[in-house]
Amino acid sequence: MEKESTVIIVAKADSPQSDIDAIEERIRLEGLKPHRIQGEHSTIVGVIGSCSPDFREQMEMFHGVERVIPIDKPYKLAARGEGRPSTKITVANDTVIGGESFVMMAGPCTIESREQLISTAEAVKRAGATVLRGGAYKPRSSPYSFQGLAETGLNYLEEARIISGLPVITEVMDPGLVETVSRYADILQVGARNCQNFPLLNAVGQTDKPVMLKRGAGCTTEEWIMSAEYIMSAGNARVMMCERGIRTLEDYTRNTLDLSAIPVIKRLTHLPVIFDPSHSCGRWHMVKSLTLAGIAAGADGALVEVHPAPNLALCDGPQSLTFENFSDLMEAAARVAEAVDRPIKPAAIAAA
Amino acid sequence: MEKESTVIIVAKADSPQSDIDAIEERIRLEGLKPHRIQGEHSTIVGVIGSCSPDFREQMEMFHGVERVIPIDKPYKLAARGEGRPSTKITVANDTVIGGESFVMMAGPCTIESREQLISTAEAVKRAGATVLRGGAYKPRSSPYSFQGLAETGLNYLEEARIISGLPVITEVMDPGLVETVSRYADILQVGARNCQNFPLLNAVGQTDKPVMLKRGAGCTTEEWIMSAEYIMSAGNARVMMCERGIRTLEDYTRNTLDLSAIPVIKRLTHLPVIFDPSHSCGRWHMVKSLTLAGIAAGADGALVEVHPAPNLALCDGPQSLTFENFSDLMEAAARVAEAVDRPIKPAAIAAA
Amino acid sequence: MEKESTVIIVAKADSPQSDIDAIEERIRLEGLKPHRIQGEHSTIVGVIGSCSPDFREQMEMFHGVERVIPIDKPYKLAARGEGRPSTKITVANDTVIGGESFVMMAGPCTIESREQLISTAEAVKRAGATVLRGGAYKPRSSPYSFQGLAETGLNYLEEARIISGLPVITEVMDPGLVETVSRYADILQVGARNCQNFPLLNAVGQTDKPVMLKRGAGCTTEEWIMSAEYIMSAGNARVMMCERGIRTLEDYTRNTLDLSAIPVIKRLTHLPVIFDPSHSCGRWHMVKSLTLAGIAAGADGALVEVHPAPNLALCDGPQSLTFENFSDLMEAAARVAEAVDRPIKPAAIAAA
Amino acid sequence: MEKESTVIIVAKADSPQSDIDAIEERIRLEGLKPHRIQGEHSTIVGVIGSCSPDFREQMEMFHGVERVIPIDKPYKLAARGEGRPSTKITVANDTVIGGESFVMMAGPCTIESREQLISTAEAVKRAGATVLRGGAYKPRSSPYSFQGLAETGLNYLEEARIISGLPVITEVMDPGLVETVSRYADILQVGARNCQNFPLLNAVGQTDKPVMLKRGAGCTTEEWIMSAEYIMSAGNARVMMCERGIRTLEDYTRNTLDLSAIPVIKRLTHLPVIFDPSHSCGRWHMVKSLTLAGIAAGADGALVEVHPAPNLALCDGPQSLTFENFSDLMEAAARVAEAVDRPIKPAAIAAA
Repeated sequence: MEKESTVIIVAKADSPQSDIDAIEERIRLEGLKPHRIQGEHSTIVGVIGSCSPDFREQMEMFHGVERVIPIDKPYKLAARGEGRPSTKITVANDTVIGGESFVMMAGPCTIESREQLISTAEAVKRAGATVLRGGAYKPRSSPYSFQGLAETGLNYLEEARIISGLPVITEVMDPGLVETVSRYADILQVGARNCQNFPLLNAVGQTDKPVMLKRGAGCTTEEWIMSAEYIMSAGNARVMMCERGIRTLEDYTRNTLDLSAIPVIKRLTHLPVIFDPSHSCGRWHMVKSLTLAGIAAGADGALVEVHPAPNLALCDGPQSLTFENFSDLMEAAARVAEAVDRPIKPAAIAAA
Repeated sequence: MEKESTVIIVAKADSPQSDIDAIEERIRLEGLKPHRIQGEHSTIVGVIGSCSPDFREQMEMFHGVERVIPIDKPYKLAARGEGRPSTKITVANDTVIGGESFVMMAGPCTIESREQLISTAEAVKRAGATVLRGGAYKPRSSPYSFQGLAETGLNYLEEARIISGLPVITEVMDPGLVETVSRYADILQVGARNCQNFPLLNAVGQTDKPVMLKRGAGCTTEEWIMSAEYIMSAGNARVMMCERGIRTLEDYTRNTLDLSAIPVIKRLTHLPVIFDPSHSCGRWHMVKSLTLAGIAAGADGALVEVHPAPNLALCDGPQSLTFENFSDLMEAAARVAEAVDRPIKPAAIAAA
Repeated sequence: MEKESTVIIVAKADSPQSDIDAIEERIRLEGLKPHRIQGEHSTIVGVIGSCSPDFREQMEMFHGVERVIPIDKPYKLAARGEGRPSTKITVANDTVIGGESFVMMAGPCTIESREQLISTAEAVKRAGATVLRGGAYKPRSSPYSFQGLAETGLNYLEEARIISGLPVITEVMDPGLVETVSRYADILQVGARNCQNFPLLNAVGQTDKPVMLKRGAGCTTEEWIMSAEYIMSAGNARVMMCERGIRTLEDYTRNTLDLSAIPVIKRLTHLPVIFDPSHSCGRWHMVKSLTLAGIAAGADGALVEVHPAPNLALCDGPQSLTFENFSDLMEAAARVAEAVDRPIKPAAIAAA
Repeated sequence: MEKESTVIIVAKADSPQSDIDAIEERIRLEGLKPHRIQGEHSTIVGVIGSCSPDFREQMEMFHGVERVIPIDKPYKLAARGEGRPSTKITVANDTVIGGESFVMMAGPCTIESREQLISTAEAVKRAGATVLRGGAYKPRSSPYSFQGLAETGLNYLEEARIISGLPVITEVMDPGLVETVSRYADILQVGARNCQNFPLLNAVGQTDKPVMLKRGAGCTTEEWIMSAEYIMSAGNARVMMCERGIRTLEDYTRNTLDLSAIPVIKRLTHLPVIFDPSHSCGRWHMVKSLTLAGIAAGADGALVEVHPAPNLALCDGPQSLTFENFSDLMEAAARVAEAVDRPIKPAAIAAA
């Protein structure tokens, strides 16, 4: 079992000598060695060795302790370490996530019908996407919203996969459905609301499918990485991180896409980083701008929502991410991707 | 099926007449009636009738639409309506949540041993608590932290329940374990990280146990209420809300306890409101201050962490929420509760 | 010149010995003594002595340094230290802020007319307030909003002060107006938007008037305390802190009142703490609830907005903080204040 | 005087007819026309015409009013309107901000010495920057930090301007110093902490210098635009917006750079948008990544911190934004800028 190491314990400013002694005594009882540094206003005790998170929490409640500062990162398997190579995840059709190419994943947010999905699959492939997205089980904040087609949707996804040759990514929300969804998906998606759903993380960690882990809207990068660590510690090393916006004071956009998370995750872990520019759904102009930004920032891929054009009988031109808009985006994306030496590779011909 | 009603559609400032006509045509096709208000710079179209959330989202993508403003609240079952009485939830031992008395729920965050739990149960009862808390399944951000005693913990909880006569509240994280946990718990707790775990909300909604729903650290009050609506729409009306802090820019405290959520929930819903002052664990001084504040703000109950004193052999006085501290807190709490006419009723004698 | 002391420097995980040596060499050149702790994965260097903030920033950019952790608080004059008594600020009419009594400051947000101010002054005094608030210079986020009556407003304030006998608090925004406003005010208010307006902090720091420093909506408690330190280091020790809400993800309330800041400021500093429950203006029910909460949390005073009733000819009962509502609030506040042993003392009779 | 127009007033769900009538009567007294829409659960009253912000606030307090929704944007001068061209700001040396080229502004955060500034000016110019930045007055959160060289720094800036031929940008914090700083600066910088310092906004609005307005860390985009409106309504139309990060729950980075603000500001206003990737100072890897992201997102320029190499006698290779790093960044930036058709134009030769 991997354990956390090295903490700094800061004693309260006015702690008597006996409190410091008791702290050191407690550390020795744990089989660890205290190193005291006596400052003018503070006393610091460094603890070298394997301090578990539980020991750390205990020390926080200790008499005379002002705070406990962990020095080493609490994640091990996800951590970028000395000489550890960046993780590359190969899915069907030779698509490699985290490799030399930037990977575009595109498709509808929700699978609505066989036709909708297949026409979109063909359109996004034609435009250069190499992974098809589509949700069969949808987390909806209202119980009165459409909740997805469930297994019927998975069947459409399988068909779209065969016809287009594109590997597919789809969301799973319930630990009890992981086995079912795994039979259809090339990549399992864990949604933002489930970023800290630990039973689900354990369940997807026990499959042999790559997992795309979306960041919780209320999660720090460290918590998000710890959730990847859960999946990895359950046995599944093929995890990719997906930034999709955090909750902030800003109210014009639904969430604030934190593109600085891209270099941060690259620095702290060896995992691929994807981003989702579409989540504030429907603002075409922002999707394009943010997609190009994420590519330039160094992401390994993007997850973009594409919908077929609504019925022309209903209105004469809704503003949405149409096939044309996506095709346009892909042209611009290709140029930026070239400029940062991460070309977008088209889907393998054999797969067509 | 309950549906949302009435939205205001704001057209883009420079939309031509034909766009506005198309918007109105689309509304009529839905079987609804548009009401146009022509302003100097804007055109607004009011839509009266049953607009589903899905229709609303569709309109947001419509050509010429600047934004769609929902007027009615998206929740129905949870909403405080005309003449609808406040919900009172009676659990074992005549404890009523949302009634005339303020209810103190106390106990250890995590069940560590039989002795720890039973001694704490007796201590908190003695001090005046009427519900015992204790976690058998613990959501931990690190896979390397102690994850709880699982069903062994539930067995200790049952024993503590019998000995103390206090009803118990305990957390459930996995839809697959809802049935098991329901056999032991008087109140099911849904944790903050699962506030939008919809399969879990559905599962607890199908039991006959009261549910305490903690607010997600990244959730707005509206999203939190929508999660209550999930539970209620699955058939379980006995939901109580629990404010436990949101993620903010403040870094001295782990989360920011949003006590204004207490009057907000009281105004928007008919559900009882509990709060959890202890989550930033270990700062005794803050727990007392925040508990009194929450009582004064009008909450129906609090959820406080109490631990037995650590082994005296190890140190001479750790600073934590000891039995003495809790007893102290209860005395102060009783005075504030009296001052706002919500006395803290002791546990029924018969239960002892 | 006060200086910051003691930092912990964490070296990068894979730093060679020569980097650590260079770090220690740099510390010695500053006249300080390095204390190395060699861990399994990390090397830590403690620095004891007077490290300036500038030295700390320099070290952050140093080759081989992962992060620099300040141990001692960066503020000195504001810090609660060993044996330092809590600050009590006496203003006119024997009102003491930070003393045994809870102090209610009330009045209109903005001075609109002589009559409005004087009638409000008399009403709030009658209800038990001991300080009159009223703004002559108003920070408004729109240049098209009413900006206040300026010096005319100050003249009305002087008159209201004489008639009611209540000391007055009013805002100053411009360093160039500090002298003028000081001639009229018993307490100078620095608004939330100016919490880090350093020229203004210096200017009010050079007066002999007590200063109420509102927390910036985007400021951590530490930054807010540092702003108090600016005023104090300019020579003015009579500073009181005022919590008035921070910007968060919550959108039902304009800001989130962070009542946990009350025990935090009490723990970290020796300064009085006030809070402002009214800022999300107009929701009577929330003002009452939050005022009682703040009193119970241990605040030294509150700042509440009270407006005279609007002309009855215009409507038959606007929902606002009327004199009746305030009087009602004061009755409830008195009970809670008694329950936490901080009675609300009425204004001195001599002043009437 | 420009005024805001058109609001929607939502009545409380259970308001009697007489309340709605009173609301409409009040609207008519203002000389405006109410438009009632009667829904099943709600009554909405649209108000067409010139509603001032003050009238809107008044209505929020009105009996029977649930909320007041402004429809038109509260800013007029800054708003992107029909046919209004994007603002281009020409500074010395033919540098145009908001034109066809991407503009790189670089230099030290703080002017420390003549040599430091001049060597940096020459280095950034050589690498392709066209504006020199450097602070003489520094807003520091600690009163014990170096506060800048003040007018001595401005003199060095003038010298660096002459030698390099680069126009200069520098910060002004105090309304009383605007005249002085304007004598030296080609662009006046208003810092994030002063984003809502209204006396300062008015003062820079009365100069004839272009102003770069940084977003406050706690400000929404709308508030930030309203601050631009202040400057413009005081008579100065040459305003550029600078995104520099907002305060969020994320704690790895000091602030979260909100790159989505770039397309948002472009959509809502006609003003140029700059961004500052360096503010979390010293993390070279992130600065490069974020600079490229901002260029791809469509910004008109960036503000990057560059420092000369620290004395080699002190250490053998500090990790900072050296001249070499900046030169490297410029090469990568040039490629991305080309890919989005916003080439980086070198400084005019005449200026050398």
